[in-house]
Amino acid sequence: MQKSRILNIILASVILVLLFIGKDSESPAESIKGFFSKARSVDTSEIGHTKRSLGVRNLVFPEPAMVIGSYDKDGKANIMTAAWFGVANSRPFKVAVSLRPATYSYHCIMENMAFTVNVPDASLVSYVKFAGKYSGRDMNKFDETGLTAIKSEYVNAPYVKEFPIVLECKVTEYHDLGSHRQFIGEVVDSKIDESLLDEEGKVNMDLFDPIIYGQGKYYSGLELIENIVEIVPEKVE
Amino acid sequence: MQKSRILNIILASVILVLLFIGKDSESPAESIKGFFSKARSVDTSEIGHTKRSLGVRNLVFPEPAMVIGSYDKDGKANIMTAAWFGVANSRPFKVAVSLRPATYSYHCIMENMAFTVNVPDASLVSYVKFAGKYSGRDMNKFDETGLTAIKSEYVNAPYVKEFPIVLECKVTEYHDLGSHRQFIGEVVDSKIDESLLDEEGKVNMDLFDPIIYGQGKYYSGLELIENIVEIVPEKVE
Repeated sequence: MQKSRILNIILASVILVLLFIGKDSESPAESIKGFFSKARSVDTSEIGHTKRSLGVRNLVFPEPAMVIGSYDKDGKANIMTAAWFGVANSRPFKVAVSLRPATYSYHCIMENMAFTVNVPDASLVSYVKFAGKYSGRDMNKFDETGLTAIKSEYVNAPYVKEFPIVLECKVTEYHDLGSHRQFIGEVVDSKIDESLLDEEGKVNMDLFDPIIYGQGKYYSGLELIENIVEIVPEKVE
Repeated sequence: MQKSRILNIILASVILVLLFIGKDSESPAESIKGFFSKARSVDTSEIGHTKRSLGVRNLVFPEPAMVIGSYDKDGKANIMTAAWFGVANSRPFKVAVSLRPATYSYHCIMENMAFTVNVPDASLVSYVKFAGKYSGRDMNKFDETGLTAIKSEYVNAPYVKEFPIVLECKVTEYHDLGSHRQFIGEVVDSKIDESLLDEEGKVNMDLFDPIIYGQGKYYSGLELIENIVEIVPEKVE
C-alpha cells in the first residue's frame, strides 16, 4: 500500500516533467514519436537489419500446440497434437486445423465431422508430446496415458478432462491445400476448468501457463509485457 | 523467472527420485506411466477438473500477433496486426490469415493477391499494438512509426525491414467464413534477420524473443521446457 503510493507519486512526477519537456516540441504526439524513432535508429545501427533469404522455410514463431480430440468409427476416443492451427473467424467463432490424410484423426474427424480443441498448460507437456508422436491407429492413447475422455455435450467428439480449456467444434467445411486438409470447425461450446476462474467466476488467464511451440521445441513461462508505450498518429490523412 | 527455475529444480528432483523407485517396477515404461498417473491423480484430486461452460467464447491461448504487409491500389505500403493466423499446409508451405472486409488490408490483399507476414520480437510490441489499432485508410503507418517498407523480392507486397522474420506470400485461394475472409498464402520466400543466425549461419531461435498474444494482452519471455518426460506406449495394438 505504502509502496504503491510512493510509486504513484514518482509516476505522477515523471508525467509532469515529461509534459513540461513536451512543451518545446510541436505536439505531444511528436515527442512520443521522437522517442520511438530514436530507439529504433539505435537498434537499426546496432544490428543493421540485414535479411538473409532461406528459401521456403517455416519460420513461424510462436506456434500453438493444440490437442485435437475425435472418435473413430467404432467410438474409440483419440487425441493428436496439432500445431497447424489458428482462429479463422469471429462471428460465428471458427477455428482451423490442418491434418494429413495419413493421420488417424483425419479419418475420425471425417467420420463425425466434429472435433474438440484441448488447450494444454505446461504441466501437460508430456501428454502433448506423446499425442503428437504416436498414432491412434496403433493404440488407445487414453489408455496409454491415463487421461480421461469425456463425451462432448454438443458434438460427437471426446474432450480431455484433465486439460484446462476445451472447445467443442463441428466441421462446417474443409479445404485440401496440398499435403494437408484444413478443417474449419465452428465452436459450439467453450469450457474452462474452474481452476482458471477467479472468486467472482470470471476467467483469469494470469492463472494459466500455456505451452508455446516453435521450431520443434516446447516453451512456457509467459510474462505479461507491461507499460507498452503508445504510438500516437499525427499525420492522419 | 526465479520461481519457475525453482519449480524446475523441484520437478527434476521428483523425477530422479521416481526413476529410482521405478527400478522395482516391471518396465521403464510402466514406471514413467506410473509417475504420470500419480501426478495426474494428485492434480485431479486437488483441482477436481470441473469444467464450466462459457457458451461460445474465444478461449484460444496462445494466439500469434503477426504484422501483415500489403500495398494499396496506389502502391502505398500498409501494415496491420492479425491474430487470426496459423500455418495451414506443409507442402507447399501455406499460412492462413483472416481479415474483416472493413479493414484496409483486406482490400489491399485483394488488389495484389499478395501479402507478407512480419514476425515481431518483444522489442517491437509498440508497433504491433499500433498496427492493430489504427487503419491504413486514414494514414501511412510507415510514416507514422518510422518503420521501413521494403518491396518484397517475389510478391507485390512490402515487408518491414525492422522485423526479424518475414514470409513473402502469394494468395492461392480464400474462404468467406462469416465475419472474416480467410486468405490462404503460399510462402514463396522466408527471410530472417542475420542477428538470428549463429556463427555458422544457422538459425538460432534461442536468440529470438517472440511476442505471444492472448485475451487482449501481449506476453514475452518464453522459457524452453527442458527434460520432458517421455511417455512410452506399452499396449500397442
